[in-house]
Amino acid sequence: MAINFQVISYQGKARAGQLTTPHGTVETPVFMPVGTQATVKGVTPAQLEEIGAALILANTYHLYLRPGADIVEQLGGLHNFMNWHKPILTDSGGYQVFSLTKMRHVDNEGVTFRSHLDGSTHHFTPELAIQIQEQLGADIIMTFDECAIPDDRQIVEQALQRTHQWAERCLRVKKREDQALFGIIQGGIFPDLRRTSAEFITSLDFPGYAVGGLSVGESKPDMLKVLDLMDDLLPYDKPRYLMGVGTPVDLIEGVKRGIDMFDCVLPTRLARHQSAQTLDGRLNLMNAIYTRDPQPIDPQCQCYTCFHFSRAYLHHLIMAKEMLAATLISIHNLFTLVELMKRIRQSICEGTFDELAQQITPMMLEDL
Amino acid sequence: MAINFQVISYQGKARAGQLTTPHGTVETPVFMPVGTQATVKGVTPAQLEEIGAALILANTYHLYLRPGADIVEQLGGLHNFMNWHKPILTDSGGYQVFSLTKMRHVDNEGVTFRSHLDGSTHHFTPELAIQIQEQLGADIIMTFDECAIPDDRQIVEQALQRTHQWAERCLRVKKREDQALFGIIQGGIFPDLRRTSAEFITSLDFPGYAVGGLSVGESKPDMLKVLDLMDDLLPYDKPRYLMGVGTPVDLIEGVKRGIDMFDCVLPTRLARHQSAQTLDGRLNLMNAIYTRDPQPIDPQCQCYTCFHFSRAYLHHLIMAKEMLAATLISIHNLFTLVELMKRIRQSICEGTFDELAQQITPMMLEDL
Repeated sequence: MAINFQVISYQGKARAGQLTTPHGTVETPVFMPVGTQATVKGVTPAQLEEIGAALILANTYHLYLRPGADIVEQLGGLHNFMNWHKPILTDSGGYQVFSLTKMRHVDNEGVTFRSHLDGSTHHFTPELAIQIQEQLGADIIMTFDECAIPDDRQIVEQALQRTHQWAERCLRVKKREDQALFGIIQGGIFPDLRRTSAEFITSLDFPGYAVGGLSVGESKPDMLKVLDLMDDLLPYDKPRYLMGVGTPVDLIEGVKRGIDMFDCVLPTRLARHQSAQTLDGRLNLMNAIYTRDPQPIDPQCQCYTCFHFSRAYLHHLIMAKEMLAATLISIHNLFTLVELMKRIRQSICEGTFDELAQQITPMMLEDL
Repeated sequence: MAINFQVISYQGKARAGQLTTPHGTVETPVFMPVGTQATVKGVTPAQLEEIGAALILANTYHLYLRPGADIVEQLGGLHNFMNWHKPILTDSGGYQVFSLTKMRHVDNEGVTFRSHLDGSTHHFTPELAIQIQEQLGADIIMTFDECAIPDDRQIVEQALQRTHQWAERCLRVKKREDQALFGIIQGGIFPDLRRTSAEFITSLDFPGYAVGGLSVGESKPDMLKVLDLMDDLLPYDKPRYLMGVGTPVDLIEGVKRGIDMFDCVLPTRLARHQSAQTLDGRLNLMNAIYTRDPQPIDPQCQCYTCFHFSRAYLHHLIMAKEMLAATLISIHNLFTLVELMKRIRQSICEGTFDELAQQITPMMLEDL
């Protein structure tokens, strides 16, 4: 087995666990910074380690297009290529193929699409998605799925059939023993489809399960309704990964419903748009009110940025169009989520998670 | 005295020394990374320390315009503002006022110019340049000078008269005891004017001297001819700073002629243009020949970038327009010059500087 997972503590559905991979052990629940193009934008691997990131995500679709999986493989795989020697997860490219590209043709065989970079035509199949991910060499890889619009039942049903067939095909061609392949549950916002999907996908006995197709435009209550179902439908002894979700309030709500893993581009994307995330909101550091503000972004925060730099300095860097602004705010935003997950984990172990959730959630209502 | 300087070893005119400032001791000869807007572009102070930078430069003109000297002062001065607690030198703004701005009116009183940012009108005088630099709070500050076109004798002569009067005015208004004010020698490419300038400026007894107005368009032989004069004209027991000069070959040639301090924007500017500096040339990492190149930029280099990343990865980051490219190449380029200065210093102490210079200079002929 490429990975091993143990739940060490429960509180309600919330779980604290340990996920062991070929590149080390990850304490769960965990937030994964996103390194789309084999770099978490604006931060070095050394800074990521200092932030406390344990597991990061890279995007198969992007790396397939550029630099190409064969180049990453030839340079020793993703870990060596990007100098991140802790665990990595790659997605399968399914979501990107359906959200970023134009001129798609989908049939049972796979998806034909045009590159968002140069318009060139490409054909993805479950087999190719696995082959690419084996070349990239992450610790955890994902099945190739069709991510459909969550509120059109007919389209979602058809996509679900394909997603299930493709999951079987992924399992069949997977070769590397040092990678764990996670299955993806789809089914949009329809509880019965989500149930069908969970039953089918878990019957294939993957070492971990992801909930896909959420946070893609549906309402927050619809998302939570789907998550409410999951704990009963997914085996307790396998890690559960909620894909693409990662505002602080979503992390709390996800953990509350038994999710172990999360990823989101938001911390670094917000940072590049001058926005600093705290547990009680966001600061737009471009705002002139920070011109002379000697405080750090968050006086409680222990990150490198908050320890050393004022809001006034960050505001200055932004106004001066200095790239250090994005780096320093990214460090803070990532640290905030990594630290939140550590606090959540500790509270689960100590039986105080409900109190923590009640304390933090109301602060973050603007996320809802 | 704000600073103390001791030459500890000579070889020919080349000197190894120690410069003690209120924020620590700097071993000379030294290369100063440039932090124009209170940030060395793309690198954090922690990364700068790891690179081994001992002394950095910030630009008075830029910081006066944005965020403003009063804001920097209110936030505890430049060291606190930018979180660099080792020595800092600020220039006086003279060079920038004459090279970056439009609609200048110069008279004996000072310079009226328009901001390169928003076109607003400003008036700089020697008194104001000192006041701003006292607000910024660097360890070493510079006299306000007029930097004239180096090959027009009449203009240079007139500018020199002003530069001398302004140097006296700077000395007169300087208040802070914890800052050392360096005088600047001008005189273009004219040996007799340089001699006049050196005699006048050294008569004012500054704690350090800068050679200004070089590397501004004159030929390399003209620059070296001026530098050849300097060792005899400047007191041995004071630090000598060659402003705005910093290719590897210029560092060697400057040290050979008795210079102790250098600054240049080139390492970070080249990095933002995908160019990596090594002792035997430059690599344009955008070039497709690096697509699969598993080597570091420089296999001999011990910097963070060369220790961990391949040319292929850096090429990928550049093609993917990832900001980490500029950061990693900046780290390498700065490290290369900082390390070169350490090797130069050691060779002076060991009496092998001539051999080092002969070994390195021919490699870098393209700089000439």
